[in-house]
Amino acid sequence: MQPRVDILDSTLRDGAQAEGISFSVEDKLKIVEALDDLGVAYIEAGNPGSNPKDLEFFNRLRTVTLKNAKLVAFGSTRRRDTVTEEDNNIIALLNADSPAVSIFGKCWDFHATQILQTSLEENLRMIADTISFFKSKGKEVIFDAEHFFDGYKNNAAYALQALQTASEAGADCLALCDTNGGCFPSEIYEIVKVVTAQIDAKIGIHTHNDSGLAVANSIMAVEAGATHIQGTYTGFGERCGNANLSTLIPNLQLKRDMRCIPAEQVINLTYTARKISEIANLNLYKRDPYVGNSAFAHKGGMHIDGVCKAASSFEHIDPTLVGNKRRFLMSEVAGRKTLVEKIREIDPNIDKNSPEAEQIIERLKEMEHQGYQFEGAESTFELIVRKQLGKYKPFFELEKFQLMTEQPKLSGPSASALIKVTVDGKSEITAAEGDGPVHALDRALRKALEVFYPELSQVHLTDFKVRVIDSNRATAAKVRVLIESTDGESVWTTVGVSTDIIEASWIALVDSIEYKLLKELEKKIKVYL
Amino acid sequence: MQPRVDILDSTLRDGAQAEGISFSVEDKLKIVEALDDLGVAYIEAGNPGSNPKDLEFFNRLRTVTLKNAKLVAFGSTRRRDTVTEEDNNIIALLNADSPAVSIFGKCWDFHATQILQTSLEENLRMIADTISFFKSKGKEVIFDAEHFFDGYKNNAAYALQALQTASEAGADCLALCDTNGGCFPSEIYEIVKVVTAQIDAKIGIHTHNDSGLAVANSIMAVEAGATHIQGTYTGFGERCGNANLSTLIPNLQLKRDMRCIPAEQVINLTYTARKISEIANLNLYKRDPYVGNSAFAHKGGMHIDGVCKAASSFEHIDPTLVGNKRRFLMSEVAGRKTLVEKIREIDPNIDKNSPEAEQIIERLKEMEHQGYQFEGAESTFELIVRKQLGKYKPFFELEKFQLMTEQPKLSGPSASALIKVTVDGKSEITAAEGDGPVHALDRALRKALEVFYPELSQVHLTDFKVRVIDSNRATAAKVRVLIESTDGESVWTTVGVSTDIIEASWIALVDSIEYKLLKELEKKIKVYL
Repeated sequence: MQPRVDILDSTLRDGAQAEGISFSVEDKLKIVEALDDLGVAYIEAGNPGSNPKDLEFFNRLRTVTLKNAKLVAFGSTRRRDTVTEEDNNIIALLNADSPAVSIFGKCWDFHATQILQTSLEENLRMIADTISFFKSKGKEVIFDAEHFFDGYKNNAAYALQALQTASEAGADCLALCDTNGGCFPSEIYEIVKVVTAQIDAKIGIHTHNDSGLAVANSIMAVEAGATHIQGTYTGFGERCGNANLSTLIPNLQLKRDMRCIPAEQVINLTYTARKISEIANLNLYKRDPYVGNSAFAHKGGMHIDGVCKAASSFEHIDPTLVGNKRRFLMSEVAGRKTLVEKIREIDPNIDKNSPEAEQIIERLKEMEHQGYQFEGAESTFELIVRKQLGKYKPFFELEKFQLMTEQPKLSGPSASALIKVTVDGKSEITAAEGDGPVHALDRALRKALEVFYPELSQVHLTDFKVRVIDSNRATAAKVRVLIESTDGESVWTTVGVSTDIIEASWIALVDSIEYKLLKELEKKIKVYL
Repeated sequence: MQPRVDILDSTLRDGAQAEGISFSVEDKLKIVEALDDLGVAYIEAGNPGSNPKDLEFFNRLRTVTLKNAKLVAFGSTRRRDTVTEEDNNIIALLNADSPAVSIFGKCWDFHATQILQTSLEENLRMIADTISFFKSKGKEVIFDAEHFFDGYKNNAAYALQALQTASEAGADCLALCDTNGGCFPSEIYEIVKVVTAQIDAKIGIHTHNDSGLAVANSIMAVEAGATHIQGTYTGFGERCGNANLSTLIPNLQLKRDMRCIPAEQVINLTYTARKISEIANLNLYKRDPYVGNSAFAHKGGMHIDGVCKAASSFEHIDPTLVGNKRRFLMSEVAGRKTLVEKIREIDPNIDKNSPEAEQIIERLKEMEHQGYQFEGAESTFELIVRKQLGKYKPFFELEKFQLMTEQPKLSGPSASALIKVTVDGKSEITAAEGDGPVHALDRALRKALEVFYPELSQVHLTDFKVRVIDSNRATAAKVRVLIESTDGESVWTTVGVSTDIIEASWIALVDSIEYKLLKELEKKIKVYL
């Protein structure tokens, strides 16, 4: 039988402690849905005792039916020297009404005496009482053995006693935590081996990435017998983050044939990472294993040559297995071959020695020299290649625009734009106001063009990034503007470079609209082929 | 004696293959200097055979004297069926004139036959001939055993034979490469154990991060006997990157007492990471262990409480050891305590229950609600607290500004700004042109204020970032602008939020200037205390 590892995702609890994260209730609901779709075993959705908003959220969740995952509410053992059923945190945790609870308790003697300021015996009673209480209420109980590894290194007997206490009180799983993220893989392996030999319980692992070892430490724990892994889906969490589940799941499922999520969901790993990052309003880290945008991006000429001969020569797995894709990057180290491959995606008739290829490569080099980068902006790249190949006719022409903005603001929008465009000999002049000049310009341009192309009403910008290219030149430096657009179905990115942020935005904005119109036209053409 | 691990940094070679990286010669010289200052053993500076620019760079390096590091030129074994001394790549490598060379050769039978398309015997001759050649020229030779681990798994005898051949030909170090980054820590450990038992040579390790395990795999290799580590200082490289040296060095030096760099340089680890990222024009990843801006950032209330009681409760090392620092983040999960700690840095007389604290917290919440985030913008935070405490007087007042920009451009700058400011009752009206409205505004503001504050001439912007806060609202969405400024000595970051990008930039720009003037004033006051 395929061995099984239960995945507990703590994006909404430990992940919420990451710098830069602030989830709304709607965000949280979307994340629960994404994780449930992916098929993780448990979703740790909040800490209702310490955070009243989390309690509200659990109330919202009562009406949500999950297909795969169990909801987990997180909280601490009862306070020292109190009665369990009268402890406010415990009551809040019970009121969350989740099928499972995660109870964290101290396993490091130093923490019991110095941080909780209680006796070692009372700490064990707190663990036992809290777990027994929730078991008596019919809950599945995961015991989060906080600081277990540091505790073990300091006082192994006490750390093991804490686990034994939790197990005897009825805990369904003992999750061993490297709370500070300071342990080495060989230590984790040795200690988990001791635990699995001495304690008859389901063992879990919870690691942090402070030493860059969270994924490795989780794997070593699994090799030593752990069958439950806690982490966050894209790795964000307090400090350096938690074990990254989008790395761990494919590591174990594709390379060790362990069942972490349903087999048919593995292909959604990349999609889910992008979705959760989008909800969290964080850019997914490009270099993230398996799911990052660069995870299968090849730039060195020799590597590209190798991958073309045999993919396994520079790829540890087939990127399509996790829903990601191979990319050949354009750059001076990439070499001609990559560019030609890209160009041939647009026109398969172009040969690597043809004058058209030569001409396009020259044009791209010239633009790279100006500060363009096409690695993140394949849509602009496609437009350039088409323009060079003569396979392109602009959808409109700009006659002129004028922008004005001032402070102090009069009432209403602060910027206004006047624009005049021409489409097939017909011109349209109009104006719009906006919150800032880019907005005013964007609105005015759309207003003018929707007269000719009503389909543009579906398009909107989802992000724009500004990067100072040569920071020595301060505000006179060139800026590169990346605009991400969507029509609700697909997402595309375009780029503009100029010393003027408005001009750079304008270039990227025009490409965004031209690209959309091009794709609409291609759809129409397909119908007739 | 303290065990020693030699560090080889490949930022300029493998790192240059990362997405988004494009180094100028000046960038490369600065990186060599930074790495040499830090005291790594080897700097792999380029691949002169495959890249003529790299050969030029080695020529430039002839005039540079290094204090600690040896320069390494990287290249492949000779081509199949050729004479070593007539191979152009070999000649280029020799012409690089570096004291050491790194020669990569195939150890995976499949690669020799399928990618190189040669015989297994000729591949071994290519390894032997190339290494012997460079040894006869007096070079230190590192043999990069490409795909060693995948090769070993496929045909252990041949992989070991390749190593033995390299060793007998005189290689000074055999660096075992997990080129595809697909191996697990326990595999690396087992295989390196076999190698160190069978082959009498200095063993090195070169890992990639495709499975999120590069750091762990390097450590496991060291535990199995390797004494030479290859990586890139901030981890960037092809695909998911290389082993991150800024994580590995403190892991081994602080936790295993192994000498990777001179002891007195450990405190410069964070500074060097920021410097190299700056040169590479990449933001240092916040969550990077040890050196990232979030590496010791605490947000959860319980964690902050714990760290205040005993730092080791949620920190695996003292952040100051690596030149980083602890940060308490402000947020709804941080709790009141963090805010009060921050406020007390500015005014130690404020008590957590004082009405001033209450009032500041209210103001901050209100601003967070508007879209402000102070986590990355401590300078704006300080100004707000001072304003609330009445410990602040603006250094100038804006009367008005007016901005104009248009397309098509007339000759010269595309934007112009008129500004009027008042300082101590005296007003100054002036105007400036700029490449774009922010630049024009920045110039006009400085021009007006330098009349009153000549010290502003040292300040310049080094970066500005724009983040769309609520992307559903497209270009009408609120944007948060972060401006990073420097006066050559310190760096500070300020933030502005508005639906108008110009207004948001203006707010951050004003804070940047006010902050600089405040710090100048504090310096002057100190002289009199």
